[in-house]
Amino acid sequence: MPSFPHTPIGLIGFGAFGRLVAAHLAAHVTLRIHDPYVSEAGFAAAGVAPCGLAEAASCPVVILATPVSSLAEVVRAVAPHLRPGALVLDVGSVKVGPAAIMREGLPPGIDIVATHPLFGPQSARDGLRGLKIAVCPVRGGRARRVAAFLRRGLGLEVILTTPEAHDREAAAVQGLTHLIAKVLVAMEPLPTRMTTRSFDLVMQAVGMVRHDAPEVYHAIERANPYAAEVRRRFFDLAAQMDGELGEVEMAGTELCPTPS
Amino acid sequence: MPSFPHTPIGLIGFGAFGRLVAAHLAAHVTLRIHDPYVSEAGFAAAGVAPCGLAEAASCPVVILATPVSSLAEVVRAVAPHLRPGALVLDVGSVKVGPAAIMREGLPPGIDIVATHPLFGPQSARDGLRGLKIAVCPVRGGRARRVAAFLRRGLGLEVILTTPEAHDREAAAVQGLTHLIAKVLVAMEPLPTRMTTRSFDLVMQAVGMVRHDAPEVYHAIERANPYAAEVRRRFFDLAAQMDGELGEVEMAGTELCPTPS
Repeated sequence: MPSFPHTPIGLIGFGAFGRLVAAHLAAHVTLRIHDPYVSEAGFAAAGVAPCGLAEAASCPVVILATPVSSLAEVVRAVAPHLRPGALVLDVGSVKVGPAAIMREGLPPGIDIVATHPLFGPQSARDGLRGLKIAVCPVRGGRARRVAAFLRRGLGLEVILTTPEAHDREAAAVQGLTHLIAKVLVAMEPLPTRMTTRSFDLVMQAVGMVRHDAPEVYHAIERANPYAAEVRRRFFDLAAQMDGELGEVEMAGTELCPTPS
Repeated sequence: MPSFPHTPIGLIGFGAFGRLVAAHLAAHVTLRIHDPYVSEAGFAAAGVAPCGLAEAASCPVVILATPVSSLAEVVRAVAPHLRPGALVLDVGSVKVGPAAIMREGLPPGIDIVATHPLFGPQSARDGLRGLKIAVCPVRGGRARRVAAFLRRGLGLEVILTTPEAHDREAAAVQGLTHLIAKVLVAMEPLPTRMTTRSFDLVMQAVGMVRHDAPEVYHAIERANPYAAEVRRRFFDLAAQMDGELGEVEMAGTELCPTPS
């Protein structure tokens, strides 16, 4: 997109995140949006017109905004329509798998930049400025120009990294947040009045991810190769803490009368 | 304290929370502070002078700012020095146990109000205004006047409740926050750069409670009669989630290449 400021960008996928991308890129570029699973009414409600796969996929820059779990299928569908020298980006929550899928599935002449915007519709409610995005060069030399546009054009904080380094950190950052949120949501109703500032912050975090599409949770917890290890540590430490507190309880404390 | 605006208040205990109490009450009342475990240098550093147990305990209003685990001992020490009609308050993180200890240990002529300021030195760094405090009438009719002072004098949001209702809610609010914080601190180092807004909020919450005195954690997790039940639910749900994700992993996903 920094290289083609006046040429159209193809957006494949118009789900929650595709809509967010469209809303913020519309001021900078012309968009050609394709999503066979969104109705005409859905497009109309967002104030944009859809186009066919070939039209979107033949733009000089193509953004794949589909769930990680269907990226392989979308790459297969898009590949025949790409023009030589095009730049393809994805926006998935994990990067090792999607980078490999794009590297294997897209023709050699296509440049590839894998990205992970570290925000969603909730955290971007007040705009993009200051939010973070991870950018991983996969093929070709255009990652730095993409990063420059994201910084200057959208005000994002860009973190240039590799798919492996990204997934290691995301496994902790997103894996833990979503895990904790899932458990707390399952425990509801939780107190809303007699709360501490720290509990309010935790519940604010829960509020930001609780309405994420199930695909996001699945990508974070299952498609991230490091997520299982992070969960293992979390659950082991939790069990250890549980055991320590349990032992003390068995020993009894005089401060702990039976509730009436 | 609302009834005696010009008479001294005894503060028994000058730990982290006693100092916070002192800092905020000094503008409103004259304090008589006693803590045999704080050195003269410690008092001098805080700009206050200590006094003997009898002097502090014979004030018209006495605040017990000691760990929940030593409240019974402090009540025994203070009781003989209290003047008839005095008002005694505590500030512990649980209320069922402390209310019972004060009701049993303090002479019948003494009024008792159990309180739990839902904040600490971290969350009160920018002042008390808008922070919350739970107030439980235990004996006598002065809880509402205490509440009025806390609202008007200190700008706190007062939640009038019972020890049982308090401990039920605190078991979730504080029990979960401290449990999650303990596990996350044990997992450090955690990412600090490639983070989401929701992860930042969780870690901000962790930062607020991670330096709490161990006594606070123990009171919350062990002296609260409902804490074990909340932990049980948290751990059971976490284990269930772990199991569900584990099963999916065993089935394998093509999106999950082995990390290099």
